[in-house]
Amino acid sequence: MNRNVVFTFFLFCFVTICRGSGTDIALDAKATLLHRIDSLNLLIYTCLLTLTVLTIWVFKHRRVSWLHETGLAVIYGLIVGAIIRYAGSTNHITHINVNPEPGTTYNLSVPPDMLRFHFPASLPITPGDSPIANKTYAYSFRGEIVNVEQNEIDLKATFDPEIFFNIILPPIIFHAGYCLKRKYFFRNLGAILTFAMVGTALSALVIGALMYGCVQLMPASLASSFTFLDTLYFGALISPTDPLTVLAIFSQLKVDVNLYAMIFGESVLNDAVALVLSGAIQNYETRYSHDGGFEISGFLGAIGDFIGIFSLSLLVGALMGCLTALMTKFTHVRDWPLLESALFVLMSYAAFLIAEVCELTGVVAVLFCGICQAHYTYNNLSSDSRNRTKQLFELLNFLAENFIFTYIGVSMFTFPKHHFDPWFIIAGFITSMLGRAVNIYPLSFLLNLGRKPPIPVNFQHMLFFSGLRGAMSFALAIRNTVSEARQAMLTTTSMIVIATVVLQGGAATHALDYLRIPTGQGSNEESEALPYRDVRSDTPRGGGDAGGGQKARLARVWGALDSRLLKPLLTHARPPLTETLPAFMRPVARLLTTTHQYTQGDNTLRRTDSDSDLCIDDPQIPSSIDPQQLWPGLVDTRISVEGITGSNI
Amino acid sequence: MNRNVVFTFFLFCFVTICRGSGTDIALDAKATLLHRIDSLNLLIYTCLLTLTVLTIWVFKHRRVSWLHETGLAVIYGLIVGAIIRYAGSTNHITHINVNPEPGTTYNLSVPPDMLRFHFPASLPITPGDSPIANKTYAYSFRGEIVNVEQNEIDLKATFDPEIFFNIILPPIIFHAGYCLKRKYFFRNLGAILTFAMVGTALSALVIGALMYGCVQLMPASLASSFTFLDTLYFGALISPTDPLTVLAIFSQLKVDVNLYAMIFGESVLNDAVALVLSGAIQNYETRYSHDGGFEISGFLGAIGDFIGIFSLSLLVGALMGCLTALMTKFTHVRDWPLLESALFVLMSYAAFLIAEVCELTGVVAVLFCGICQAHYTYNNLSSDSRNRTKQLFELLNFLAENFIFTYIGVSMFTFPKHHFDPWFIIAGFITSMLGRAVNIYPLSFLLNLGRKPPIPVNFQHMLFFSGLRGAMSFALAIRNTVSEARQAMLTTTSMIVIATVVLQGGAATHALDYLRIPTGQGSNEESEALPYRDVRSDTPRGGGDAGGGQKARLARVWGALDSRLLKPLLTHARPPLTETLPAFMRPVARLLTTTHQYTQGDNTLRRTDSDSDLCIDDPQIPSSIDPQQLWPGLVDTRISVEGITGSNI
Repeated sequence: MNRNVVFTFFLFCFVTICRGSGTDIALDAKATLLHRIDSLNLLIYTCLLTLTVLTIWVFKHRRVSWLHETGLAVIYGLIVGAIIRYAGSTNHITHINVNPEPGTTYNLSVPPDMLRFHFPASLPITPGDSPIANKTYAYSFRGEIVNVEQNEIDLKATFDPEIFFNIILPPIIFHAGYCLKRKYFFRNLGAILTFAMVGTALSALVIGALMYGCVQLMPASLASSFTFLDTLYFGALISPTDPLTVLAIFSQLKVDVNLYAMIFGESVLNDAVALVLSGAIQNYETRYSHDGGFEISGFLGAIGDFIGIFSLSLLVGALMGCLTALMTKFTHVRDWPLLESALFVLMSYAAFLIAEVCELTGVVAVLFCGICQAHYTYNNLSSDSRNRTKQLFELLNFLAENFIFTYIGVSMFTFPKHHFDPWFIIAGFITSMLGRAVNIYPLSFLLNLGRKPPIPVNFQHMLFFSGLRGAMSFALAIRNTVSEARQAMLTTTSMIVIATVVLQGGAATHALDYLRIPTGQGSNEESEALPYRDVRSDTPRGGGDAGGGQKARLARVWGALDSRLLKPLLTHARPPLTETLPAFMRPVARLLTTTHQYTQGDNTLRRTDSDSDLCIDDPQIPSSIDPQQLWPGLVDTRISVEGITGSNI
Repeated sequence: MNRNVVFTFFLFCFVTICRGSGTDIALDAKATLLHRIDSLNLLIYTCLLTLTVLTIWVFKHRRVSWLHETGLAVIYGLIVGAIIRYAGSTNHITHINVNPEPGTTYNLSVPPDMLRFHFPASLPITPGDSPIANKTYAYSFRGEIVNVEQNEIDLKATFDPEIFFNIILPPIIFHAGYCLKRKYFFRNLGAILTFAMVGTALSALVIGALMYGCVQLMPASLASSFTFLDTLYFGALISPTDPLTVLAIFSQLKVDVNLYAMIFGESVLNDAVALVLSGAIQNYETRYSHDGGFEISGFLGAIGDFIGIFSLSLLVGALMGCLTALMTKFTHVRDWPLLESALFVLMSYAAFLIAEVCELTGVVAVLFCGICQAHYTYNNLSSDSRNRTKQLFELLNFLAENFIFTYIGVSMFTFPKHHFDPWFIIAGFITSMLGRAVNIYPLSFLLNLGRKPPIPVNFQHMLFFSGLRGAMSFALAIRNTVSEARQAMLTTTSMIVIATVVLQGGAATHALDYLRIPTGQGSNEESEALPYRDVRSDTPRGGGDAGGGQKARLARVWGALDSRLLKPLLTHARPPLTETLPAFMRPVARLLTTTHQYTQGDNTLRRTDSDSDLCIDDPQIPSSIDPQQLWPGLVDTRISVEGITGSNI
């Protein structure tokens, strides 16, 4: 019966229809086709990732260690890229040249955002089966066409480079911050900061200068297309390391945790440094270079840019992390883990967005947000949310990382803006190796002057060896490919990434053997059976020199501040603020202290997250600090836990 | 010392730089500005979602039930949308009209993909501080400009509608399939399928016809812009229900699970039905309507489209689900939960992409993929992956759902293509209510003829009341806004969604009271203390009529197939295939059976996922089926577990 009703209505009404033209249908078909091609591209990557996952499983199952998942992803990417390039059909893009309509008034210095095009109008279309109605179509601005001859923008299996900075890198970097073993990170903070900040800048400069020299020796056509800023940019983008493969082997073979922390910590921070550094170089290029001379103001501006953007991004990230900690501490949102996890994710993403809106670097903000979330917020979360957020970001990180390495492989063949220049590539390989050496060996020497025990020579070799290049270098290189110089950089970077990930990654186990670096340390990080266990560059231990003492005091003040002010404020950790704040602030302290903080035993919570504590936060160290040092003349150390039950909501 | 080196190099090299022009810098600034605006838009939504999460927490904490999170998201969206609209500054889009260059040859019936525009060339730019170099810029095709006067495409806080179908809806729909309580779903399958398939088509048709009638009574300008296909499309897009709010209250108040299953199951399926139906209507429009008459071939083609696309999408999803089950069964990837979860996510996403590549409906594929993943794959997963995948999709679903409702609110004010027509809106409200009534009451009457116990009248009223409109209606409405008719539909749909979510959602508790629907059923779904517990429309129970008996046989065959072939094949469930397959297939059966399946006790695994079993899978039912019925003449029922240890990898 229903079907009858349907039929009658259809019969009754379909006589009224008269719509559509040939062009509409053709446009519709075209849009469908484009959507299918997009889906197909994504499907190719999904299948590649699936294949990678299955092969990794086989490798893990068969205990193959000479090829890491990222190396595998790159190799699969290369194979499929070659197939797409040489077997696939090209998708031609039609184009015509246009002029403004006569009498158009327009007087901005930038081209308009949109063109309106009347089609077919005066174009000589061969008359087909149906006449084509004149319609107006909108065309939106895409960018400059540099090479007018190269007329096919072939977009097979490629994505807008900005997706790396806005979608792929943030979860990777956040995860790095979130799962940083902060205890060992802070123990080796001096070395890590030196390698990451000074080392990366030094490496960028050395590579930039050497490349500039090399380029001058090359054929004139290439030499003229590179400025020093270009090669310096290349130095900045090729300097960050991404030793995923090496670290995977480290944790598999249980290599010394301090070495692990140094390599991991450095690679996390130098990504951030390189990103901001390359931004500063680019800013310099666009902002200050309108006349040919060297401008001291421009140079200082670039340095100011670097420092300002880095520290403000850090601040945005850290503040958002602390805000999340406050929200999770003072609300009972932990009773609904789903809401709590959503809040966690949203706040972390907001850190990224706020930084981007303020023209800072979202990726850097997200890194420090991740560190704060792990250090403070994590302690407030329900166990369900702890698991959920850890697992979520672990999965996102895994997928994003493998996607980017697959893409590096595929784009080697399919990305249209490659420029293969053998001399530039060879020079790139050699200088990037030298840059790494200049980063590690001289700085290790300097560090060892003030560090007890020093970084052994075999560790230095391993640090040098762990200079694999990865996601950040590639993302920076593919971001800008307008000139031939930039295209040569992209090609060189891709090749360096592929070679280091596959070859150095594959040889990592042998390198450990060869360098006689002890393996098999207990998986329990608390068991520090190796002789290197006592490296605490930041704690004064006997004869630290003046510089070391300086740093140690800074670290001690920070440690005390963290354990006496920030942790009690932002988490449920003991001692509560009522004990650590000066007497006159007691009303505020009471407001900011939860019942939970008063009632719990002194060690219950502290023990659960011992891994995530600062090394400086070890029980014996805060107790050795005189509270006077922190709040001179204000601290009433006799404040005891009173019967206050200031429950907050 | 390092700094000195830096400085010398800078000093040495910066003299070589001479690049950049005024236009480049202006373009750069423009690109940065656009990126910042994008980030700001995302930030607005992130903040809105954060606010929603916090408010939900307060509401849950204070046990407020008259406003659900989706209602809250809509209201916050409306407020912020109004603020953006009336307080924000407009971002003007500059445009000029262009003509082809003289002598251009081009003879395709579609406009070119790209225009090349020489700027500034002949344009009368007022001479600024620096002369502007001539450059060629690329402009890519965007779409037809319908209303040439409405010249500002204002894109404040709006997104490309396609993101709903490609990013927002898939996780929502997958989650719905993945967390479907299949036991009660299959118990009420008859009713659910009737309401979702027949009911949605019927409702679309009734609404379409009534709206067409209403439109004819309206002022001529509006009447002439609507064809019957337009109003039918409106009927299809307004028919799917999205009773999130009601269901949240149901599970909070522990309302009868069968009623829950009917409402939830219907809403899941009718989304899929409406999506495919609207696609078929649109295909009809573009493909068959070039002359005015009613074409029987076109009509049959549309029905064929509908059935073909629906069932093929279903097939793609189900096959990908089964493939994942096979992968997780026959590999030990479960030893590495991260790999396993990644595989699960990738395969599910591949189902979506494959369907899209094949011009099927990805969302439908993802739904059935989710059901299969839950029914088969879930049993093979490690407990870590079970948690991780459930929590991941729960979180994605939560964020996606709240995002879409926030967007409905915001876009009410900021989306530029709204067309407020009070008559159309009033007619839309009335007809959508009538459509829901036509769906529920007559079909319930028909169902009750063959259903024991029947659906009580108060349940029917509740089904009617649960006809809230939501994400799918909105996504369909915003997909196409080229004509005035479509814009009026979008406005009406948005208003219906907002009104039903806020008002009906808020009144749900009272409706339950008023209709005297029993609440407080035990949270343990196995405890079926309510009189309605025995509704098994698909199992013959005494005097089922012929139709019921027919359906029951179908369901029984499916149940036997599932428990004797699919479950043993795809999961580690007992009995193994060696017991259920006919004798001549025993070698194959041995290959497909894991050691685990031989060695485990009969009930260990079955019990752990009792919730996820089909009702038809209850122990007593398969045993009542003669194996001969499934494999007539082939089954050797005396096959017993032999000492085979066919371990697979």
